Amino acid sequence: MAIEILLNGPVPCQGAGILRRHFGNAARVVERQDDTTPPPPETLAGTEVLVSVVYDRDFPPAPRLRLLQVPAAGVNGIDLGALPDGCALCNAFEHGIGIGEYVLAALLHLTVDLAGRSARFKAGSWADNFRFAAPFRSELAGSTLGLIGYGHIGRAIAARARGFDLRILAVTRTPRPLEPAPDWLGGMDEIDRVLRQSDFVVVACPLAEDTRGLIGRERLALMRPSAVLINVGRGPVIDEEALYDALARRRIAGAVLDVWYRYATPEAPDLRPSRLPFHELDNVVMTPHCSGWTEGLIPRRFSVIVDNVERLRDGRTLRNQVRPPS
Amino acid sequence: MAIEILLNGPVPCQGAGILRRHFGNAARVVERQDDTTPPPPETLAGTEVLVSVVYDRDFPPAPRLRLLQVPAAGVNGIDLGALPDGCALCNAFEHGIGIGEYVLAALLHLTVDLAGRSARFKAGSWADNFRFAAPFRSELAGSTLGLIGYGHIGRAIAARARGFDLRILAVTRTPRPLEPAPDWLGGMDEIDRVLRQSDFVVVACPLAEDTRGLIGRERLALMRPSAVLINVGRGPVIDEEALYDALARRRIAGAVLDVWYRYATPEAPDLRPSRLPFHELDNVVMTPHCSGWTEGLIPRRFSVIVDNVERLRDGRTLRNQVRPPS
Repeated sequence: MAIEILLNGPVPCQGAGILRRHFGNAARVVERQDDTTPPPPETLAGTEVLVSVVYDRDFPPAPRLRLLQVPAAGVNGIDLGALPDGCALCNAFEHGIGIGEYVLAALLHLTVDLAGRSARFKAGSWADNFRFAAPFRSELAGSTLGLIGYGHIGRAIAARARGFDLRILAVTRTPRPLEPAPDWLGGMDEIDRVLRQSDFVVVACPLAEDTRGLIGRERLALMRPSAVLINVGRGPVIDEEALYDALARRRIAGAVLDVWYRYATPEAPDLRPSRLPFHELDNVVMTPHCSGWTEGLIPRRFSVIVDNVERLRDGRTLRNQVRPPS
Repeated sequence: MAIEILLNGPVPCQGAGILRRHFGNAARVVERQDDTTPPPPETLAGTEVLVSVVYDRDFPPAPRLRLLQVPAAGVNGIDLGALPDGCALCNAFEHGIGIGEYVLAALLHLTVDLAGRSARFKAGSWADNFRFAAPFRSELAGSTLGLIGYGHIGRAIAARARGFDLRILAVTRTPRPLEPAPDWLGGMDEIDRVLRQSDFVVVACPLAEDTRGLIGRERLALMRPSAVLINVGRGPVIDEEALYDALARRRIAGAVLDVWYRYATPEAPDLRPSRLPFHELDNVVMTPHCSGWTEGLIPRRFSVIVDNVERLRDGRTLRNQVRPPS
């Protein structure tokens, strides 16, 4: 019997070729590009594995569903209460490489400003040369990097940051021996210490009830005026208005933001990512949630998903279980 | 007796405060900002330590000179034959931090393009978001980094690159166990292998008779069409015209160039850094020899120079001897 897999949405559909090549006739792979509405009942009726970033009470019954596989880390689009009892929920990572490279690119962009220097020199100015009394640039070496969250992302950042003579501080929910070991690791209740001491603060934790608004006005006020905040977690972990105010009033030096408070869709492509004009601030570097979107991502994630489908078929324990089947 | 130190030129003069604070009355520190002509005879007559990046046969006699201390790595401005017999020639490094950060900034700029992405998003475009069918960006991970030269600079680059899952190849004049160990280390005669296999080639060797024109038309032709050449050594290590042609004709994908074929001076501030219009090429990132010009550079270099002046006074062996006194 072929196992029935529904790819629900544009990102899940990116793995269709990988699944078909791997399983051949052993799987029936159904593609559904548009996930802005729930799948129709007849599509979901036979589905055993659903690959989707969304699932809620509006979804029709899925009596055969045994695995909801999110092809991403964030499961904030999944309503756990709506999930059938016998169905496991798993996620996938594999974006540490991309996001780790993005964060180090951000630190070095802020420190070296290669693009700005090149633009000035191409325009004919030697002002950045020492013969023309160029100011010295700062060094990344000797700075303190604070990581809010020390999961897959935080550790991928730390692994890349280690060679730069940075002091690395991190907080995580359950501090335990983790590789690579930061210079200091504390619990989430010690976040204020990280905010006070860091030259760069990176938000790399998931969005959950206890992390929404984690960094608000009072915590932003703990940061050094020279410090920069980098968000590669989820927008609402940082309070929107408090962040805008801190940046506009130069309470902190700047921000590099990849994750947002609202998202455009192909139907509403002109939506700005916040109701506040972050794009007008010259101390903000901003990108549209693309830090982990690299050519290795889909192959790596779908090799995890292939593995999970085989584990399900063989009755073995699944990988990356967010909720086991009950 | 106070030791007599002449600081010849704008960069040597940057250390005047450090030397005076350290030595007080034990040294007489003379500053001379302009080194475009030799010092007058009366200035050099009593000099025991000359801090300068230039020295040639036009310099007046320096009968008391015992140490010519170059406050930089490159001694290509020193005519060794003109140096008095009893005088040692020493150089100073300490720019590995700055140049290492610059090279990693270059790799990540080329890979992530944070500045370009931010400009597009600030202008209102979500084209880099996956919901808008954004192309996947490449990953630095899995690439091959080739280092031409594995001295202070090459090793500072390798130390920073190690966390990024790169394969690191290096050539150096005298291959020997060096930290950090690259994945492969060969002699300079194996440079062609590095050029053929690398996605990024970094020139980090000094300019000398055997490195002038080291990378010419034929060696550029060995590089992959997708590869990028980064020069933080000295301009003329790469043949000027061959490099321009390879870039203009897209024989290689691009270049990041910090060192040049000619330099502007305050008297001729509009000089372009090459007789060829590199600044018109959109696959060139270019900066005016500033990769190592960081706030930690002068303090670190002058702490080496302070140490050498004390060693000279005490009759101990000098550090970083390029040529011992004969």
